[in-house]
Amino acid sequence: MTDNNYIPDDNNPVFDEYWKKRHTVRNFLPRDISDDLLLELIDKASKAPTTGGMQLYSIIITRNEETLKNLACQHFNQPAATGAPIMLTIVADFNRFEHWCRLRRAKPGFNNFESFVAALLDAVIFAQQLNTLLELSGIGVCYLGTTTYNASKIGDILNLPQLTVPVVTLAIGYPDNNCMTGDAERIDTDSIIHHEVYHQYSDVEIDQIFAGKEALEQNKKYVTENHVPSLAHVFTDIRYPEEAARIFSQDFYNYIERQGFHFPDIKR
Amino acid sequence: MTDNNYIPDDNNPVFDEYWKKRHTVRNFLPRDISDDLLLELIDKASKAPTTGGMQLYSIIITRNEETLKNLACQHFNQPAATGAPIMLTIVADFNRFEHWCRLRRAKPGFNNFESFVAALLDAVIFAQQLNTLLELSGIGVCYLGTTTYNASKIGDILNLPQLTVPVVTLAIGYPDNNCMTGDAERIDTDSIIHHEVYHQYSDVEIDQIFAGKEALEQNKKYVTENHVPSLAHVFTDIRYPEEAARIFSQDFYNYIERQGFHFPDIKR
Repeated sequence: MTDNNYIPDDNNPVFDEYWKKRHTVRNFLPRDISDDLLLELIDKASKAPTTGGMQLYSIIITRNEETLKNLACQHFNQPAATGAPIMLTIVADFNRFEHWCRLRRAKPGFNNFESFVAALLDAVIFAQQLNTLLELSGIGVCYLGTTTYNASKIGDILNLPQLTVPVVTLAIGYPDNNCMTGDAERIDTDSIIHHEVYHQYSDVEIDQIFAGKEALEQNKKYVTENHVPSLAHVFTDIRYPEEAARIFSQDFYNYIERQGFHFPDIKR
Repeated sequence: MTDNNYIPDDNNPVFDEYWKKRHTVRNFLPRDISDDLLLELIDKASKAPTTGGMQLYSIIITRNEETLKNLACQHFNQPAATGAPIMLTIVADFNRFEHWCRLRRAKPGFNNFESFVAALLDAVIFAQQLNTLLELSGIGVCYLGTTTYNASKIGDILNLPQLTVPVVTLAIGYPDNNCMTGDAERIDTDSIIHHEVYHQYSDVEIDQIFAGKEALEQNKKYVTENHVPSLAHVFTDIRYPEEAARIFSQDFYNYIERQGFHFPDIKR
């Protein structure tokens, strides 16, 4: 029943603080996270919105050391991956729901791109709800954006069946507070908001929007260290080069097909 | 700097309540939501995780009555769409970031499927963070899953430029508490969790997982009203028929291409 008695006091300072101060954690203590706590947080996260109540996702908990190493390797052995005591792989999953439909002799039509997108949205919404719940419990989280780069190998490690695709990985653990982590670095909020229609940015506006980022000492250091003309080049030439994106695009595309979500014909 | 002083007391009962009780709201009061409050919540939501700090999303706020009507029409005039005083369309957006790269004479390579996926993830993570912040402020939210069905027409209404694709819409407003809304209906949490590898469900397990859903009075009513043999048929024949999914797949695919994110070649 509709009731809003869960709404906390607007002026709750502790609560307010979280939203402004949250940040990614990449260095973890070896301290364990109990299964009971994980289950409780996953349970709460499962109340997140989901397409038609279908819950088109699964979560795979990796604690085994050998599997952690294998997964970390697929995440290019980035420190957050090699140092995390637990990895949570969130999977876009139409397998469970389709199985039910087949058992009831209903004819499922979920082997297509739109169904993949629905499951992807469900998986990411759930992942972000879980991210918030983990952080509010004092657990540090790092999203591994590399999940879609090596989805097929990650899928093989985790024995993923048809109609499932890994889309997000959360590397988690209690934060090692001896390691410094900067606050989240964001552009001015006005510049992500558009009223009524999309406001096409002028060159001058783009200059202003990214000026803060370019002025940060840490970012200036990246430019110097990488011997590139600007911070933008760090993104285009070093971090996200076109050739890599093309290879990852092809691999991910092939894997989605292989998992049984078929793309329509190209009509260029 | 890392500091966890934002962590609220574990035993805060108000806080705990929210995660268990949250639910979609589809009926709204005509009461206004101030721009100041919206800006504050969007600002907090922008601290959510984002790929490489790039913030590959934009949010378009629709308050204009005519535009609200046009958008609602693209969302099949579902009650949450026609009754919402405000719609928020969240857009996967590589346009702003690419503009900056071009201005700096860096060569961006973002016109591909993998870049679209990165922006999609960013947009959904931001949308879910905002969903939580809105709900915690007492504002009701309904995700419109129809955004990707009619993305091209929604994109045209909102004047979306190249490298932007609408992926999620939040219909928002203060809840009309006279309208009953059921609690979120979820399968048992154990059934979405897998340890170490994906546990392939047996037929018996699938029966058990969906038994609770099938036993709900509301769901039994859907089966009777639609004259179908089972609840699964409500999903396969009425709500998500294959023919519709194929059309939406093709439309969304074509639109993503049109917006400049090119799919790789099919290798079946």
